Amino acid sequence: LIGRRRVVVIGAGFAGLECTKVLAGTEVDVTIVDRNNFHTFSALLYQVATAELAPGDVGFPVRGLFHRAPNVGVRRGTVRGVDWDGRRVLFDDGEDLPFDVLVVAAGATTNWFGVEGAAEHAFPLYGMGDAMHLRNRILSAFEAADADPASVGDGHLTMTVVGGGPTGVEMAGALVELFAVEEKDFPDLDVSAARVVLLEARDSLLGSFSGKARQHALDELRARGVDVRLDTAVARVDHDGVTLRSGECIPSRTVIWCAGTEASPLATTLGLPTGKGGRVEVGPDLRVPGWPDVFAVGDLAAIADGGDGFLPQLAPVAQQAGRFAGREILRSLRGEAPRRFHYRDLGTMATIGRRAAAADLRFGIRLTGTLGWLAWLVLHLWRILGVRNRAAVLLTWAWNYVTWDRGNRLIVAATDPRPSTD
Amino acid sequence: LIGRRRVVVIGAGFAGLECTKVLAGTEVDVTIVDRNNFHTFSALLYQVATAELAPGDVGFPVRGLFHRAPNVGVRRGTVRGVDWDGRRVLFDDGEDLPFDVLVVAAGATTNWFGVEGAAEHAFPLYGMGDAMHLRNRILSAFEAADADPASVGDGHLTMTVVGGGPTGVEMAGALVELFAVEEKDFPDLDVSAARVVLLEARDSLLGSFSGKARQHALDELRARGVDVRLDTAVARVDHDGVTLRSGECIPSRTVIWCAGTEASPLATTLGLPTGKGGRVEVGPDLRVPGWPDVFAVGDLAAIADGGDGFLPQLAPVAQQAGRFAGREILRSLRGEAPRRFHYRDLGTMATIGRRAAAADLRFGIRLTGTLGWLAWLVLHLWRILGVRNRAAVLLTWAWNYVTWDRGNRLIVAATDPRPSTD
Repeated sequence: LIGRRRVVVIGAGFAGLECTKVLAGTEVDVTIVDRNNFHTFSALLYQVATAELAPGDVGFPVRGLFHRAPNVGVRRGTVRGVDWDGRRVLFDDGEDLPFDVLVVAAGATTNWFGVEGAAEHAFPLYGMGDAMHLRNRILSAFEAADADPASVGDGHLTMTVVGGGPTGVEMAGALVELFAVEEKDFPDLDVSAARVVLLEARDSLLGSFSGKARQHALDELRARGVDVRLDTAVARVDHDGVTLRSGECIPSRTVIWCAGTEASPLATTLGLPTGKGGRVEVGPDLRVPGWPDVFAVGDLAAIADGGDGFLPQLAPVAQQAGRFAGREILRSLRGEAPRRFHYRDLGTMATIGRRAAAADLRFGIRLTGTLGWLAWLVLHLWRILGVRNRAAVLLTWAWNYVTWDRGNRLIVAATDPRPSTD
Repeated sequence: LIGRRRVVVIGAGFAGLECTKVLAGTEVDVTIVDRNNFHTFSALLYQVATAELAPGDVGFPVRGLFHRAPNVGVRRGTVRGVDWDGRRVLFDDGEDLPFDVLVVAAGATTNWFGVEGAAEHAFPLYGMGDAMHLRNRILSAFEAADADPASVGDGHLTMTVVGGGPTGVEMAGALVELFAVEEKDFPDLDVSAARVVLLEARDSLLGSFSGKARQHALDELRARGVDVRLDTAVARVDHDGVTLRSGECIPSRTVIWCAGTEASPLATTLGLPTGKGGRVEVGPDLRVPGWPDVFAVGDLAAIADGGDGFLPQLAPVAQQAGRFAGREILRSLRGEAPRRFHYRDLGTMATIGRRAAAADLRFGIRLTGTLGWLAWLVLHLWRILGVRNRAAVLLTWAWNYVTWDRGNRLIVAATDPRPSTD
């Protein structure tokens, strides 16, 4: 008697979730594993950090997705390794999980690029906890300045965003809009002293976008008051601010790190072969070369782009790769030969703020301004998981747009006054 | 030249907020002070703890309330004392704030009633942070049981609620409804092993309610599976559970303390005369006797009920007392004589769950079941601050009611991987 094939998917991000959805209702047993009990719609984390959306708007309970799929299990846990001989995933709570096929979709982590002091003093924006912590920090900076206005001069209200990719551009634009709300909140404070500095080491923002999009982002951010500095590399981050490679210091108590990611250290922990950025260079069928039953997908994987580079670490790549891996598992069960993964590029977009966004779509369609912004809104609403979250986000966006308000500007964290009792 | 009178209101709970609203737009300068930058609609905190509502639904940014009142300032800060000679409120960040009139509305804190181990092992439910922490704890208990089903026997899924007042009753009822969602979330777990125990030292639940309401709460909770134990006092709480005064042990890893509150220690810190429960016994005009420019309102104050007792620590009492104090300040400015505060009792209500609540209203109207529940819903929606929060709560309640879902069941906290840089 041969049992059903057991698939374990590590990570409930875009890649792991799509893979599991393909396998739901099929003849394999799947367990999806994540540290959190929810999927994070990470494209909107910067809106949590800037009090535009609530954490619950961009987090979706994973178990809820699979209530009707009896072949899918969910395990909240932190993977500490894999027993390859015994074919078991090992958790840090001592438990384990057997598998026949493993899909590693553990994502990425912040890449500090070795910049001195960055890991200690800059704020990352990769997970929900990061976004909530950053929100508390940004809002607290205004509270502290209001309590002691004399402190405003030395960078308390200067927020420096490092990295001019989509996340950095969106973060900088959202901060400026938050400042407009803070101006109403703090009538006694000179909020015009609050500044956003956006640092980009290369010669343009949104490096991977079209020329039109890059120019639009630069023009719009500058028009909205962001101090955008191109060709500007960071040498050091400390308690007081950022020191540039030119030697210039920018006093700034809040430094937000949007400079890039590197693959989750789990790839190395598992002993998988890794390349640039710690990513696992997979074959054209997304299997790890030499490991026929192991797939790597999402930000953790490096997938050749057909030329001499790799596909970017974007949500659509992760989703398509996840779906492909799921289908590939089913194909191999039926004895079919492996196929090649082809990425279908649907375009990229980044929003700058109210009625300003840059969207490079298919067929050479380049939208900016209001049209780009509407395209961005519709696409993001459509991509958010679940009717409830979609309705909540739509309601909040409409409210914020009409009232220029940010109802989610609560400084709040779970408090535990007592020692852990677990 | 005599400047404008400066009023400082300590606390942005029900009492402090209502007082400040009365003073907004008048000829005094007001500053409202709170540890948080938001007001908490504390009547619904148990719904945050049971993943029914999101924290942002029951929290409202205080500053937003006073955008159009130039005479109202908001200060987020923790009060560490008052310099009575210099007439300044002192903050723990070293700053201070001058006042002519002080309104102390600092609320209450959990009363552990000296029960051994309670403060270390039981979970309070008085502030937003408590509610979020408890939510994470409850949801994590199911995750942990799912990861290691062998552990379920020893109280991991037994939640004990201590105290059968409105908060305890509402908490117990909401937990049972959450269990129904968890049953769908954890198909491999025997969720029927999850239990709610409600302990009440006296001989009935909802002691201050009518006989009909008390019986309804007891019947409904028992029908829904809550193990209600009356005349049952707690002797000790430890890591493994609760020990009753009878000597019986209830294995229970999650003990929720709804047994009562005592006045904020600030009353003592400020040197105000305190009585039973640490509350400040105020005069009929809500001034602290002997301190003509100091009012005490809300849960921190003890207001004579006309007989030989005091008014209960309820939101309506706090709101009416806050409004009265605000008006009294304006009256004294105009040279009018102090008046007497009269509490207008509009009734009390507690919800048990879907279509079950007990409402004791005016004119002897006693509603239970669906009618009581509808009355509860309408009243609470109406009382929540702000159009946005009201719409969000209505949307979420409707969604939860129709789908039997709890979209907010995220285990999440702000994460700060680095040492504090402030």
